Amino acid sequence: MTPDLPTPTLPQALVLLDYFGIAVFAVSGALLAAEKRQTLVTFIFFAVATGVGGGTLRDLLIGAPVFWVHTNGTLLICIVAALSVWVVRRGRLDGRALLWFDALGLGAYATYGAAKAVAFGVAPVPAFAMGVLTACAGGIIRDVLAGQPSILMRPELYVTAAALSAGLFVGLALVGMAPWAAALVAALSGFALRGAAIGRGWSLPAYRG
Amino acid sequence: MTPDLPTPTLPQALVLLDYFGIAVFAVSGALLAAEKRQTLVTFIFFAVATGVGGGTLRDLLIGAPVFWVHTNGTLLICIVAALSVWVVRRGRLDGRALLWFDALGLGAYATYGAAKAVAFGVAPVPAFAMGVLTACAGGIIRDVLAGQPSILMRPELYVTAAALSAGLFVGLALVGMAPWAAALVAALSGFALRGAAIGRGWSLPAYRG
Amino acid sequence: MTPDLPTPTLPQALVLLDYFGIAVFAVSGALLAAEKRQTLVTFIFFAVATGVGGGTLRDLLIGAPVFWVHTNGTLLICIVAALSVWVVRRGRLDGRALLWFDALGLGAYATYGAAKAVAFGVAPVPAFAMGVLTACAGGIIRDVLAGQPSILMRPELYVTAAALSAGLFVGLALVGMAPWAAALVAALSGFALRGAAIGRGWSLPAYRG
Repeated sequence: MTPDLPTPTLPQALVLLDYFGIAVFAVSGALLAAEKRQTLVTFIFFAVATGVGGGTLRDLLIGAPVFWVHTNGTLLICIVAALSVWVVRRGRLDGRALLWFDALGLGAYATYGAAKAVAFGVAPVPAFAMGVLTACAGGIIRDVLAGQPSILMRPELYVTAAALSAGLFVGLALVGMAPWAAALVAALSGFALRGAAIGRGWSLPAYRG
Repeated sequence: MTPDLPTPTLPQALVLLDYFGIAVFAVSGALLAAEKRQTLVTFIFFAVATGVGGGTLRDLLIGAPVFWVHTNGTLLICIVAALSVWVVRRGRLDGRALLWFDALGLGAYATYGAAKAVAFGVAPVPAFAMGVLTACAGGIIRDVLAGQPSILMRPELYVTAAALSAGLFVGLALVGMAPWAAALVAALSGFALRGAAIGRGWSLPAYRG
Repeated sequence: MTPDLPTPTLPQALVLLDYFGIAVFAVSGALLAAEKRQTLVTFIFFAVATGVGGGTLRDLLIGAPVFWVHTNGTLLICIVAALSVWVVRRGRLDGRALLWFDALGLGAYATYGAAKAVAFGVAPVPAFAMGVLTACAGGIIRDVLAGQPSILMRPELYVTAAALSAGLFVGLALVGMAPWAAALVAALSGFALRGAAIGRGWSLPAYRG
C-alpha cells in the first residue's frame, strides 16, 4: 500500500509553511472552542482535529503513513496553540490578522497536499483533490464537531482558493516546471485569490434553480 | 496490510453498475447542493464526497488501495455529474426518475461492496457490513456536510435494502453459488425491495419505548 | 505501513475489558436510537458505529489492520447489543447503572488504545492521543450521526477521564513499569475520575473570554 518512494523532497521553505499551516489551523480550532465557551480539554481537541485533520485524511487516502503519528512535535504544536488561545484574551487577537494568516496557511497547505500526493504517485485529478482536501478538511471537521454550518456552505472564495493552488501546482508540475517554482507560484496564487476575497469581498455566484 | 490478492474479478456488468452507482450518487450530492443554493465549487465537492465516500471508507477498512486515487476517471465522472446538475434546470429533472436510478445504484453498490470485501479475504459478517457501508456512507457524509438529518434517521427502507443485497451476496457466496449469479440475485433483490419502498411506501416500524 | 510487529500482548484481563467496552458503547449507541424512536436497522447501525468507531479510527491512524474486519465476533457483539436494547423496555434500563458501566468502558478503552499504539511503535504524544480517540470517537460519531451536540461540547469530565487513563499508561510505560501494572493503574484512575464526575458532578471550568 505504501510505495517505497522517498517522501517528497519539497523546498525547505514549504516544509516550514506546512508547520505554519498546522499552527494557524490549530489556532482557528481553538478560537471556535473559545467562541462556544468550552473547556481547556475541548480547546485542545478542536486544535488537534482542525490542525491535523486535513493532512490525516490525505495520508490515509494516498496510503502514506499518517504524518503526525511517529513524531511528538506536530501534536505539541497544536497543544501549544490551544493553550495560547486559552491564555491570551480573545479581544486582543486581531480577527483580521488571523484571516490573513489563515489565507497564507490555506495556499501553502493546498500546495503541499498536492505536492505530497504527486510524490506518492497519485494521478493528476486525485492529486488536485488531495490538495483541496488537505487545506479544507480540517475546517470542515471543526465545524461538524461544533455542530455549525461548514465553510463549504458559504459563498466566499475559500475552497476555490485552495483549488487554485492545488490545480496550479499539478498543472505546472505536469508541464515540467521545477517543483520549487511550481510550489511558489501555486501557493502565492491561492493566497492572492483568498486575499482578494477577504479584502474586496469577492464571492462565487450561488445556484438559482 | 494490502494482501497480495488479485482485485476481485466481478462480472463486467457489475463493474459497469459500479460506475453507474458513482454517477447516481454524485448527482444526488449535487442536487442537495442545488437545493441549498450553493456555488459550483460546492456542487463539485458534494458530488465527489457523495459519489466516492462509501467506497472510500470500504477500501480504507479492508486495507485496499483507495479505488479513485490512481485513476483520473472516477473523479471526472463526479465533476461531470456536478456540472450537469448545475447546467440543467432542476425543474426538468424528474425527481421520481432519480429515485429509481438511485435504487438501482443502491442494490449494485451494496453488492459490489460486499463482493470486493469477500475478494479481499474479509470475514462474512464484516463483508456484509462493507456492502451496507459502500451503499450508504456516501449519502450519510452528504447529509452531515449539509447539516441535515441523515437518511439513517428516516423510517423508509433504504439501509435495509442495502442490507438485503449485501447479506444475500455473502450468504449465496458462502453456500457456493457462482459470484456472477450471486451478484445478480443480490443486486436485483435489493433493487426490488427499495422499489417497493418507493412505489408502495413500505417502511420499518419505529421503536416505541 | 503495517510494521511486522506482534499484536500487543496485553494482559488477558484488559482484552476482556476491550470486549466489555465495545458492548457498552454499542448499547449507548442503541439507546440513542431508542431515544430518537428509530427502526431496528438504525439501532444496529448506531450500535456498530458507536461500538467500533473509536478503535477503527485508531487502527487506521497507526496503520494496523482494522480490528473487526477479519473476525465475525466483534460485529455480532454490537448486533446483539442493539437487539437487546430493542427487546428490553427502556424504562427497565437503569440509566445510572449504564453511566457507571460506561465509565468502566471509558477507562479500559482509553488504556487499551494507548497500549496498542505503543505496541505499534507510535511516539508517546500520539500514543496518548490514540487512547483518547479510542475511548471518545465512537461517541462523537454517534452524536454527529444523530445530529446532536457531541459529548465534546459538555463541560463534564469525560474526555478528561480518557486523557488521564491514556496519559498515565504512556507515562508509566515510559518510566519502565510493567505493561500489566501500568494498564491497571491507568484504567482504574480514569474510571475513578469519571466516577467522581458522575457521583459528585465534577466538571471543568469553561472559557470566559
